[in-house]
Amino acid sequence: MVRVVVDAMGGDLGLETVIDGVAHLSLEDNDIQMVLVGDADAITHALGERQHDPRKLQVLHSDGVVAMSDSAKDALRDHPNCSISVAMAALARGDGDALVSAGHTGATILAASQHLERLPGIRRAALAAVHPTEHRHGPREDPFALILDVGATLSATAEDLVSFAIMGSAYAQIISDNPNPSVALLSNGAEPNKGTEAIIEAHEALINHPQINFAGNVEGLDLPRGTVDVVVCDGFLGNVVLKMLEGVTEVVTDLAKDAYARKFLWRLGLTMLSQGLRQLRTMTDWKQYGGAPLLGFDKVVIKAHGRSNSRAIRNAIKVAAKAVSRDLAGQIRRGISHTD
Amino acid sequence: MVRVVVDAMGGDLGLETVIDGVAHLSLEDNDIQMVLVGDADAITHALGERQHDPRKLQVLHSDGVVAMSDSAKDALRDHPNCSISVAMAALARGDGDALVSAGHTGATILAASQHLERLPGIRRAALAAVHPTEHRHGPREDPFALILDVGATLSATAEDLVSFAIMGSAYAQIISDNPNPSVALLSNGAEPNKGTEAIIEAHEALINHPQINFAGNVEGLDLPRGTVDVVVCDGFLGNVVLKMLEGVTEVVTDLAKDAYARKFLWRLGLTMLSQGLRQLRTMTDWKQYGGAPLLGFDKVVIKAHGRSNSRAIRNAIKVAAKAVSRDLAGQIRRGISHTD
Repeated sequence: MVRVVVDAMGGDLGLETVIDGVAHLSLEDNDIQMVLVGDADAITHALGERQHDPRKLQVLHSDGVVAMSDSAKDALRDHPNCSISVAMAALARGDGDALVSAGHTGATILAASQHLERLPGIRRAALAAVHPTEHRHGPREDPFALILDVGATLSATAEDLVSFAIMGSAYAQIISDNPNPSVALLSNGAEPNKGTEAIIEAHEALINHPQINFAGNVEGLDLPRGTVDVVVCDGFLGNVVLKMLEGVTEVVTDLAKDAYARKFLWRLGLTMLSQGLRQLRTMTDWKQYGGAPLLGFDKVVIKAHGRSNSRAIRNAIKVAAKAVSRDLAGQIRRGISHTD
Repeated sequence: MVRVVVDAMGGDLGLETVIDGVAHLSLEDNDIQMVLVGDADAITHALGERQHDPRKLQVLHSDGVVAMSDSAKDALRDHPNCSISVAMAALARGDGDALVSAGHTGATILAASQHLERLPGIRRAALAAVHPTEHRHGPREDPFALILDVGATLSATAEDLVSFAIMGSAYAQIISDNPNPSVALLSNGAEPNKGTEAIIEAHEALINHPQINFAGNVEGLDLPRGTVDVVVCDGFLGNVVLKMLEGVTEVVTDLAKDAYARKFLWRLGLTMLSQGLRQLRTMTDWKQYGGAPLLGFDKVVIKAHGRSNSRAIRNAIKVAAKAVSRDLAGQIRRGISHTD
């Protein structure tokens, strides 16, 4: 049995969407127990309107929510009983094994650092994300790769980058069923002496690391290609490149729409290409990936996308449960213990 | 009359390609004089096989060339008379107003720093590049934006970022006929307090800069969209994101080819879409942009792409001549003199 604390208030689509995902999941054949944190009346009302299995659901009342436009610091200080704080406190005191939130990213990271313990040897947490790639990854042939950190930190020391490599490798093993994921540092050249001091030093430390299948440095070219399974960088760089990949997807979609509007022959061509476009859309659909893990704490935390629909919420909770049952924290601990 | 020194040995396609571009250009109606640096016999032979205007061409002998696989430092030390060194020395002593090379990027930057003077107030040179965007830019509606630095430096101070902004703005004004190009800092959020210390400090300095149309910070999303005309970042970040954009173009092309091979209906669809694909290819074809300027020196230096064909070489020389005749250096000087 895995217990997942769910921030029912977070997410752009509102409480109804989260409860919809939770209610559906409770009816599936699994051993996931959920603690729903938020306005108890609203949650109870939303559950009342949906088929659900009450034996798998528990409600924990909270007061208020961090809005997307809020400063995380101010919001958590001014609203100590907001949903993400109450949810994280419940996780910390052992009422759950994992937490899922589609709410404010900064507030989720800050609340985690306020309430949870970092794993031994981990100086900084990292947020990881998946991005679509041309190459396939792991035995399931996933059309995406993992990149971290994408925004929990700004800069990173060599030691931080090494711990990100260990955490990313552990997560890829568990989530993609990939026993030996390849890991690389993102740099401005493939040679070991390319990059910032932190990257060069991390490269040296990773070359002989017994737990890491280290592929050296990769360059910007390798991100859309998907040359490796896990790409490691500091949070500033990760944030910029991840948003850039999102932007590219948007632009390709815009160009296709534009063509669609303009010309009959193009329209015909596009219809014929629809199978291919559908494939591309699936490839770049974050909804099916289940969210971004916040790695480095002693509990599993999954940040679902703000625009998550009920299916994405359901997937995020499943991913969280999988990470718990496959002992993500233990896997990271073992990697760290093999670092000099 | 503008005099352009051309490194005839540089470029993946060899001397014949460079001479082809030069010979063609000499027959066009312009006032560009060219100094061709390289193996004098080979240049004379290649010219002999092509129509050209000998009044516009001069040959300067050099010995050896920096191979793409060489270390720039070692190569320039061991081969002091290689083409890029001889060409840069000729530029420095006033035998030319500008230099174009399709050779080794690192060697071009290093030779420039060895031979040329930096403009007053410029602590570091920057390599700028254009990348395709969804939005159009300037009165000519160029489908590309400028980004710098993309690899002349690794890290950059706030002062460096401000000088990159001035240089990029000056170059966009001259090359895109854009009297008031918008300039932004690439960061991990639009807010003024987002980013590294250097970015936050540069933001403060640029907000009230009288010569810069400062648009604040942009994020990764804004690069493919092309929200602004000039994007400023340090050379490490610029290198990663530029290569990533190249990678995306490659992947889209690969996906299209793959579809082409697989299915007849797709094939038909693609044929019908060919006009759109041709447009996309043009949008992402660096050959027509004429190369990347190395900014910050008292002479114009244009690094043409290694894979430049003869048309790309011709365009790079024209761009160099345009930058000279519109006084790029003077424009940058004026911007710097208005910086506190």
